[in-house]
Amino acid sequence: MKENEVLTNTQPQHGMFQDAFFQQDGSEPVPMMVRAEGIWMYDDKGNAYIDGSSGPIASNIGHGNRRVADAMYQQAITLDYAYPRVARHAPNAALTEPLCRLAGKPFERVGLASGGSEAMDLALKFLRQYAVAKGTPNRRFLVSNMPSYHGASIGALMISGDESFAPFLAGFSVNGAKVPAPMTYRIPSGSTPESIAEESVAALEKTFFELGPENVLAFVVEPVGGVATGCLALPARYFKRVRELCDRYGIFLVFDEILCGAGRTGKFLASHHLDFTPDVVMMAKGICAGYSPLGAILLPAAPVDELAQLTGFNFSHTYGANPISCAAALAVLDEYENHDLIGNAAQSGAYLGNSLRTRLASSNPVGEVRGIGLLYAVELVVDRGSKQQFPHSCNVTEVARTEALKEGLIIYSRRTSGGKFGDWFIVAPPLIVASTDCDEIVDRLQRALAGVWKRYQKTLASA
Amino acid sequence: MKENEVLTNTQPQHGMFQDAFFQQDGSEPVPMMVRAEGIWMYDDKGNAYIDGSSGPIASNIGHGNRRVADAMYQQAITLDYAYPRVARHAPNAALTEPLCRLAGKPFERVGLASGGSEAMDLALKFLRQYAVAKGTPNRRFLVSNMPSYHGASIGALMISGDESFAPFLAGFSVNGAKVPAPMTYRIPSGSTPESIAEESVAALEKTFFELGPENVLAFVVEPVGGVATGCLALPARYFKRVRELCDRYGIFLVFDEILCGAGRTGKFLASHHLDFTPDVVMMAKGICAGYSPLGAILLPAAPVDELAQLTGFNFSHTYGANPISCAAALAVLDEYENHDLIGNAAQSGAYLGNSLRTRLASSNPVGEVRGIGLLYAVELVVDRGSKQQFPHSCNVTEVARTEALKEGLIIYSRRTSGGKFGDWFIVAPPLIVASTDCDEIVDRLQRALAGVWKRYQKTLASA
Repeated sequence: MKENEVLTNTQPQHGMFQDAFFQQDGSEPVPMMVRAEGIWMYDDKGNAYIDGSSGPIASNIGHGNRRVADAMYQQAITLDYAYPRVARHAPNAALTEPLCRLAGKPFERVGLASGGSEAMDLALKFLRQYAVAKGTPNRRFLVSNMPSYHGASIGALMISGDESFAPFLAGFSVNGAKVPAPMTYRIPSGSTPESIAEESVAALEKTFFELGPENVLAFVVEPVGGVATGCLALPARYFKRVRELCDRYGIFLVFDEILCGAGRTGKFLASHHLDFTPDVVMMAKGICAGYSPLGAILLPAAPVDELAQLTGFNFSHTYGANPISCAAALAVLDEYENHDLIGNAAQSGAYLGNSLRTRLASSNPVGEVRGIGLLYAVELVVDRGSKQQFPHSCNVTEVARTEALKEGLIIYSRRTSGGKFGDWFIVAPPLIVASTDCDEIVDRLQRALAGVWKRYQKTLASA
Repeated sequence: MKENEVLTNTQPQHGMFQDAFFQQDGSEPVPMMVRAEGIWMYDDKGNAYIDGSSGPIASNIGHGNRRVADAMYQQAITLDYAYPRVARHAPNAALTEPLCRLAGKPFERVGLASGGSEAMDLALKFLRQYAVAKGTPNRRFLVSNMPSYHGASIGALMISGDESFAPFLAGFSVNGAKVPAPMTYRIPSGSTPESIAEESVAALEKTFFELGPENVLAFVVEPVGGVATGCLALPARYFKRVRELCDRYGIFLVFDEILCGAGRTGKFLASHHLDFTPDVVMMAKGICAGYSPLGAILLPAAPVDELAQLTGFNFSHTYGANPISCAAALAVLDEYENHDLIGNAAQSGAYLGNSLRTRLASSNPVGEVRGIGLLYAVELVVDRGSKQQFPHSCNVTEVARTEALKEGLIIYSRRTSGGKFGDWFIVAPPLIVASTDCDEIVDRLQRALAGVWKRYQKTLASA
């Protein structure tokens, strides 16, 4: 078929591949993927790779799932499209039911979007319109952590904590304030992770006061981070204080579970590890697992039904809650439940975490292994004692990614905040992964990291 | 199958349908669609509807297309996903080739997003990062028309010209300036459409000067409007002047063809009706025709390749250029070419336009029929002489939509700018429509509009 023809990397043509936009370093050629099944991906040169990061932590049920493909096909030939602003369709309701059931109380309403950034955008718009409709139009400021990542739409970038965005965002007016995230790896002497978390909460309250607590709309936070913090799982005691603060000042506590939700941490929501709930949850990557662009916001019934009465919610997208994306996500969630993938995330995740820590974390260039469930960051340093980072010019996260590729392993790495907070990559295989797969991942990673270290030694020798 | 079970409108459940967010008027129940094929949609009560608006002007190739369903299925079981920041896949390049070929010079690069709003967001981010990378970080202001519609992401809302958004957007800082669009239906006495267009261009130049032309990043405009202007096709002489202004001040001229592109106007791009090209084009709805969330930005090679060298483009989405969406869109474009749907849009469109004008435009409550190709707005007035609008409380666009539904016809209507610029609905059937289908559409519309008028008379009598 035409769409499966193999095009070579260098074939000149109109349009080109999406990566034409992303180069700069551009030194490393990217593989041309032609096939994928389960945890494996195959390129046009016959190389096989373990998808050790589920793409960008998305392909949670693995590749080439025929159950999902069938569901999309059946939906396409039955009812490919209906505009959910003025029509209803079964897959929409059939999807929101298990989402709410799995998320548990108080989540009873689901707004659907086409991906995580759009879900973030949707949540911010919903909360803002709710505030205006309720007669509190002054509630407008958004607070988030530095570092953090909440998506790549302009709306989401307003609250993403990445200092390297500053010159770019200076062009778009921004109304987000940032609070230091309670990072744990490099803490000043005399501090402890506990005292750092206390300081972060104190800074949050200070920021609320600087903005005027009555002017703050929401505090948005990833309960477990992704690339921005290197899978930092924020502690329960931190969130207890944050929840109290938000309650006290009537500020929405919004959990960005776009990356860490959908079973990745061993529970359906990362917030299920806590003994309270946020006001709003965003989900995306795992719930449609790469098959169709989908994101979701989960809310209690009260604010949604109240806004629907007051003014209605004014903003919709053509593809919001479209039938085929809903059918795909419903089939994905069925796979979660039929194969207990969340249970496997906990079990295989514990095995993988233990393996990463025991086999990698005590030798160069690994500074720390952080994470939970099937979501780990490996932080890279040149000196384990001083925790010194690699020279910026080494671009060590990119080196690690390409060394892993050579070993037939895909990891997810991307320098954030210009590397200011550290350098790490993510290991987050599909939730179908077995412990033997985890062994293979760590084997390949060990060889890749040896390659990273060797390349660094060579750089030193030639300097 | 579970995802095709028919759920009734009233069945209580967790999650609910997407429209739970949109009510307010909430008076009219929405149909529960269960099946769709070609230009027809069917609800759970056994009612058949002609999709007279292609949903929100999206389902351009009609419903239930097996060629597209097959392409998506094959892609899903072959290579469901690859992250296009770090991998390539054939459907990405296979899609961008016909997009550039059909768009023609100078468009050689295609950035893909998951829908129109995300494409708009992507274009603004690209242009902004390009300006910063080129050493002109002062270029930041975005100018657009009032009224206009450019999408529902927070980024797109910054430039959408809808006065009813003001209290909402006051919460998010905005850097968009608005210029009066050259609306043609209600023009002050002494003015002509030509003089109004001149005034609009003069206002644009004035706005550039107020902001400082060196501080303006882009002027974004729909060559043919949708709901915001009621399918107003802006004249060639207007664009000639606009192009000159943008060239003179180094400001990007950005065409939003999210709605009017992809053959809808009888040419692949609405800008193909002009004898010059914009700098950037956004497309969405028609190119994937409702089957998978997809949007695109089209650019010449030079700025894309230059930015890739300078700094690279920093922002990506999980689902950008994902294989299944690309495969769906490629199959959709194949349908365009195999069945000459663009030729049919011109031919059936001329027939439909003529029929709407001759059969509807000379009786109450129709004030004017505007449009081109298979894209028409029908403007509604209570008095054809004075062009007086319906009372706001009538919510006449919603009445027209529901009267049409009763006649088995789906039209697209949505009050924009609080009805300030007029009330209209859109007729825009799939590009597969035959002239006999157009007759049937106009028959049903005639009955629906008689119903609208009757309801209005009843309101008057009871007032």
